[in-house]
Amino acid sequence: MLQPPLIALMTDFGLEDAFVGVMKGVIATICREARVIDLTHAISAQNVRQAAFHLDRSIGYFPAETIFVCVVDPGVGTARRAIGVQAGPHRFVAPDNGLLTPVFERWPDARCHELTNAAYQLPNKSATFHGRDLFSPAAAHLAAGVPLEAFGPSIDVAECQRIELWQNRPLEDGKGWQGEIIATDHFGNLITSFEAGMIADGEGWQVSVGNAEPLRIVRTYGEAEPGHPLAYTGSSGMIEIAIRNGNASAELGVGEGDAVEAREGSKTDKNLN
Amino acid sequence: MLQPPLIALMTDFGLEDAFVGVMKGVIATICREARVIDLTHAISAQNVRQAAFHLDRSIGYFPAETIFVCVVDPGVGTARRAIGVQAGPHRFVAPDNGLLTPVFERWPDARCHELTNAAYQLPNKSATFHGRDLFSPAAAHLAAGVPLEAFGPSIDVAECQRIELWQNRPLEDGKGWQGEIIATDHFGNLITSFEAGMIADGEGWQVSVGNAEPLRIVRTYGEAEPGHPLAYTGSSGMIEIAIRNGNASAELGVGEGDAVEAREGSKTDKNLN
Amino acid sequence: MLQPPLIALMTDFGLEDAFVGVMKGVIATICREARVIDLTHAISAQNVRQAAFHLDRSIGYFPAETIFVCVVDPGVGTARRAIGVQAGPHRFVAPDNGLLTPVFERWPDARCHELTNAAYQLPNKSATFHGRDLFSPAAAHLAAGVPLEAFGPSIDVAECQRIELWQNRPLEDGKGWQGEIIATDHFGNLITSFEAGMIADGEGWQVSVGNAEPLRIVRTYGEAEPGHPLAYTGSSGMIEIAIRNGNASAELGVGEGDAVEAREGSKTDKNLN
Repeated sequence: MLQPPLIALMTDFGLEDAFVGVMKGVIATICREARVIDLTHAISAQNVRQAAFHLDRSIGYFPAETIFVCVVDPGVGTARRAIGVQAGPHRFVAPDNGLLTPVFERWPDARCHELTNAAYQLPNKSATFHGRDLFSPAAAHLAAGVPLEAFGPSIDVAECQRIELWQNRPLEDGKGWQGEIIATDHFGNLITSFEAGMIADGEGWQVSVGNAEPLRIVRTYGEAEPGHPLAYTGSSGMIEIAIRNGNASAELGVGEGDAVEAREGSKTDKNLN
Repeated sequence: MLQPPLIALMTDFGLEDAFVGVMKGVIATICREARVIDLTHAISAQNVRQAAFHLDRSIGYFPAETIFVCVVDPGVGTARRAIGVQAGPHRFVAPDNGLLTPVFERWPDARCHELTNAAYQLPNKSATFHGRDLFSPAAAHLAAGVPLEAFGPSIDVAECQRIELWQNRPLEDGKGWQGEIIATDHFGNLITSFEAGMIADGEGWQVSVGNAEPLRIVRTYGEAEPGHPLAYTGSSGMIEIAIRNGNASAELGVGEGDAVEAREGSKTDKNLN
Repeated sequence: MLQPPLIALMTDFGLEDAFVGVMKGVIATICREARVIDLTHAISAQNVRQAAFHLDRSIGYFPAETIFVCVVDPGVGTARRAIGVQAGPHRFVAPDNGLLTPVFERWPDARCHELTNAAYQLPNKSATFHGRDLFSPAAAHLAAGVPLEAFGPSIDVAECQRIELWQNRPLEDGKGWQGEIIATDHFGNLITSFEAGMIADGEGWQVSVGNAEPLRIVRTYGEAEPGHPLAYTGSSGMIEIAIRNGNASAELGVGEGDAVEAREGSKTDKNLN
């Protein structure tokens, strides 16, 4: 049986206004049978890097043939290009501003077309809301079976904008990494730029952030005392820092962009919690 | 092929509680095949005018035969009427408190019925949550094919409540308009009461709000320096005021209800930004 | 005609991150035809009792055969069990931490199985996000027709965790109840632990909270002056306290957990508002 097409939406539009509702109205007008899932609409305003991170960590949990609509678009209305991308089993529509960097890294053989064909945009396109006037229609027409080639000229993905997702540098003594907090989540947990695999199995490593004592890496929240901080491999696959039954970001005064250090230590180090 | 019916929801219920989820449960119980789109649930508490504005600017992006459920209802439990309206290609259910003013203005030949038939309400209807007990059931029964006439007596739409959506007065010297900020959006952009068409093509006009320098009207965010305010035709079709990469409402200290002025000026006026 | 399966989600994950979107991606991957309704994702972090309350008051508004996914899970990653429950016409998946207490109270003959079968979990299950890795897959496999028995060993529901949902004690003089505020809603209305039926028809009773004057019980908001507090039977079936056109929680300085008293009084009592 043919499955109805699936569209996933990610924006920085919030849910206070009707922006997202209207995008869904546009999609339903063009492709009534498409199903829509909200990935999130709470990306910080114009934070392309945060959007790229959330997209990167989410793609793998969606079924093949998902169409991702990603609109964090500080350059809307300027000469920045709008692009449609076929990458692996998925398609993506987004501004060409680096948001799709993780897609290009994962699927270097992705195909990309500029979304220029006015036949697949709303008439009277605004200069400020391409989520409604360009990206939602593009996704809905893709869902309805329009081939990517029909949307506009082919672009070499090597020419698409890329951004640095996050930065890790080796420590001066070579015994670990200097990284950064790349996001805080709803619970105040701090997501670091350290992929779990960078720190072997975590044995003997310690993670330092803000004024907190260096932290050993544990498996789950239950291994810390209530109110105490802990480091662990988060569900995103990155090392995270939390306070059990608390809010690490608020209580440690640490947030996105702040420095964090992972250091290989001794298992008998007395300074550890 | 028969399309599944489409229901769009707009309320001031927020998403913190289960109010909206329960409305969807009620709809699914009565009309399982109906698809539901959230227009927004973040209308300011009891702000009927704000709801009317968002509805007005959203209707055109939904497919024909959409059933709009609009519940901003300070008079719930009092003698205020609940109404169902057929207007153009759409149907609407709402309290009779002026929320549907833009619907009546757009479609003066709308048909209206009072929603009194208890057969299409939940048993044990509460006095405080008609979104669940009356409006969601009404929408779901409409979606399931019950004709509007079956819900209750016909009402002349001329007798339905209307509200003034916003107020623009000519300036004393006749060279422009005194209006108001009718909404601020998720980004802090200020939506004025000036429809773009009132200001011709914007050439030579300037817009003033709060203590900001009068602003020329530009086409898009990119035409202002980062951190500087700009005026432009917003995606709602109204003149809006934003700060590029900033939050105009917070930075200018201006919000809903505040005064704004649009004045026809000279293109060579030195005071413009 | 076969209805598509219906899944209702309740979590404390918020909507700022992609947690909920990813859960829906997982569900769509396993059971593409399932429809998903968000009950709420704004349960206070780790507040199992609040989740139980909202679940209790919502179940009755959902169609038979709904699968409820309830994830408020402070013990995630510890030895706490994950359970699947068939109760009345519904199924539930949740951590075994008392969240399902109202389900067990309503349907004492519920059947329960531990969710241990790795075939119905994501590979590489994380220690911190069972909403994605365990509960969403379980719900989707149930929706796809896998019988509850296949998920793991049977558990006697008498051995499942229970919590005290709220506490009401008789007043010392026997003329009423000492209870508590069990939730505040989006409007700042205070939901008390008094079920409406405890207070007969409300005639002659008065409710006291914080420093407010004792309140008679009225039928709806319209019976109080704007700006004045009132007590009434809320849509949840509990006595609630509101301020007409205001925010009772903010203005009275009262919130979850605070004490409230209901006292049988004289209809001619002069101290009443």
